[in-house]
Amino acid sequence: MYGIIATWRMALEGITEAEEMLKKGSDAKDSIEKAIQMVEDFEFYKSVGYGGLPNEEMEVELDAAFMDGDSLSIGCVGAIKDYANPVSIARMLSEEPVNNFLVGAGAEKYAHRHGFERKNMLTERAKIHYHNRVKETTDNKELKPYSGHDTVGMVCLDQEGHMTSATSTSGLFMKHAGRVGDSPISGSGFYVDSKVGGASATGLGEDVMKGCVSYEIVRLMKEGMHPQEACDKAVRDFDQELKERRGKAGDMSLIAMNNKGEWGVTTNIEGFSFAVATEKEKPTVYLVKFDENGKQYFEVASQEWMDNYMKTRTAPLVRK
Amino acid sequence: MYGIIATWRMALEGITEAEEMLKKGSDAKDSIEKAIQMVEDFEFYKSVGYGGLPNEEMEVELDAAFMDGDSLSIGCVGAIKDYANPVSIARMLSEEPVNNFLVGAGAEKYAHRHGFERKNMLTERAKIHYHNRVKETTDNKELKPYSGHDTVGMVCLDQEGHMTSATSTSGLFMKHAGRVGDSPISGSGFYVDSKVGGASATGLGEDVMKGCVSYEIVRLMKEGMHPQEACDKAVRDFDQELKERRGKAGDMSLIAMNNKGEWGVTTNIEGFSFAVATEKEKPTVYLVKFDENGKQYFEVASQEWMDNYMKTRTAPLVRK
Repeated sequence: MYGIIATWRMALEGITEAEEMLKKGSDAKDSIEKAIQMVEDFEFYKSVGYGGLPNEEMEVELDAAFMDGDSLSIGCVGAIKDYANPVSIARMLSEEPVNNFLVGAGAEKYAHRHGFERKNMLTERAKIHYHNRVKETTDNKELKPYSGHDTVGMVCLDQEGHMTSATSTSGLFMKHAGRVGDSPISGSGFYVDSKVGGASATGLGEDVMKGCVSYEIVRLMKEGMHPQEACDKAVRDFDQELKERRGKAGDMSLIAMNNKGEWGVTTNIEGFSFAVATEKEKPTVYLVKFDENGKQYFEVASQEWMDNYMKTRTAPLVRK
Repeated sequence: MYGIIATWRMALEGITEAEEMLKKGSDAKDSIEKAIQMVEDFEFYKSVGYGGLPNEEMEVELDAAFMDGDSLSIGCVGAIKDYANPVSIARMLSEEPVNNFLVGAGAEKYAHRHGFERKNMLTERAKIHYHNRVKETTDNKELKPYSGHDTVGMVCLDQEGHMTSATSTSGLFMKHAGRVGDSPISGSGFYVDSKVGGASATGLGEDVMKGCVSYEIVRLMKEGMHPQEACDKAVRDFDQELKERRGKAGDMSLIAMNNKGEWGVTTNIEGFSFAVATEKEKPTVYLVKFDENGKQYFEVASQEWMDNYMKTRTAPLVRK
């Protein structure tokens, strides 16, 4: 069995490529790295890699992580600027004996020393988003300055049973300089153990890290739960806990896969989508819906939805 | 009941002051912040705050965290330079609605805007340590460039039942610029839930974050375990897991306290010390020892040990 699961529709092209690789016997490290790179490289995905939305100083600062479920080795970058593929830097860091998590200027020095591709990650399109948001915020004091935090997070299983997890994001739009979310935080944005399975998160990192939700899901799978049961329990319980203690819970969407290629997804928001491919299932985008009783179910994205998705992502953008 | 527990002998002065505060009804936030500040301010503790050992570029980069066990609010700084009290910046960040974890230059901007005290954290003594290490490494290729990573981590319970956890460290001596350890990582370096208890770690951050050990201890206490039982299980199991998968496990010492003021400590190294004070127990330093069967036990530090500790910490240092 092999498989890969990822947050959001934007992962589709990446997991489609990864599925081809896995089918041919490629390992979980190369496959997941390639899948994440493809999301990072596509400029119309505005929350990951090139074209990612900038912080309040109009700089694109990126977080990424890479974890090997065999050795539990982890590599992470936080608040790194102007490198094309943060996930690849994270992967190399996961192979270092120590100094596995580097942030800011130090992360950039490491990437520079190791010859990673420099790239101005701030696109013209992202600048228009920035200017429009500044204008909207000035025009309407009620508008929240923070929104949009669609991390790509993945879990991958190869034919040999090796598992990996990886994440990449530009984080909260209009975040403070130097802000790090949950994406490079072990147990929060990601966690994987090849003996069990892996999980990854997208949503409000500040809340996800209050509950170490990815670790908790893997732990529940270790106790014997199916990935869906584990995601449901961890996300529902923690969402409830946050609401009781804080009066609200941030956006939180978790994906998981175990080492049999079974998967699960739970979200506390409307409009979450995810992409999955396994030996048994061709690359598919699902939309998460809720019935009248609030029960979550999955619907395969229609061709119309898919066409509309790409149309809105690539539509011309006008500076207001 | 009230109480405070902390990693290493160096916490003694801080927890002694905190115990006085807690006795008078001070809350867990003020008490733990004061305790950590005192460790940060004392220049002879060479792994926390002022006098902390520098990175490979001879710059002192500091990590710190603050967590409120009632709301689960978290504030963290990573790789911040030249501010006197990282723990206080972390505390203020824990009160922000988002942007709770800031690193590098962005963290420094935040601290500057909020008027935190600027201080050159690199002491003459730390420079001598740096030069001596460079020389030793050049003279003897066998010497490991990394060693010394004594984080101060604490858990505090006040009379009202509120709990907090906090950490502060200069991280690995001779680390890469921008390296972040487990100390500001939720679930790894620290975790606290006032309904249950809290835990905090010192040791090789790169390994601690592979297992989210602080979260796991709190979780085990939530299942009903005594803090000592929870520390033993989490640390022993994970140490074993790392050895099986990686052939070795990094240094790992965990302290925990539950919301009844009961505490526990487990380490996988020789030479660990910790400090604890509760309503029932005056501030005490314990040394962790192992009997001939490898079973861990605690011994109250003798006056001779205490005298010798301070003498070696403050002894004149000669540049080799």
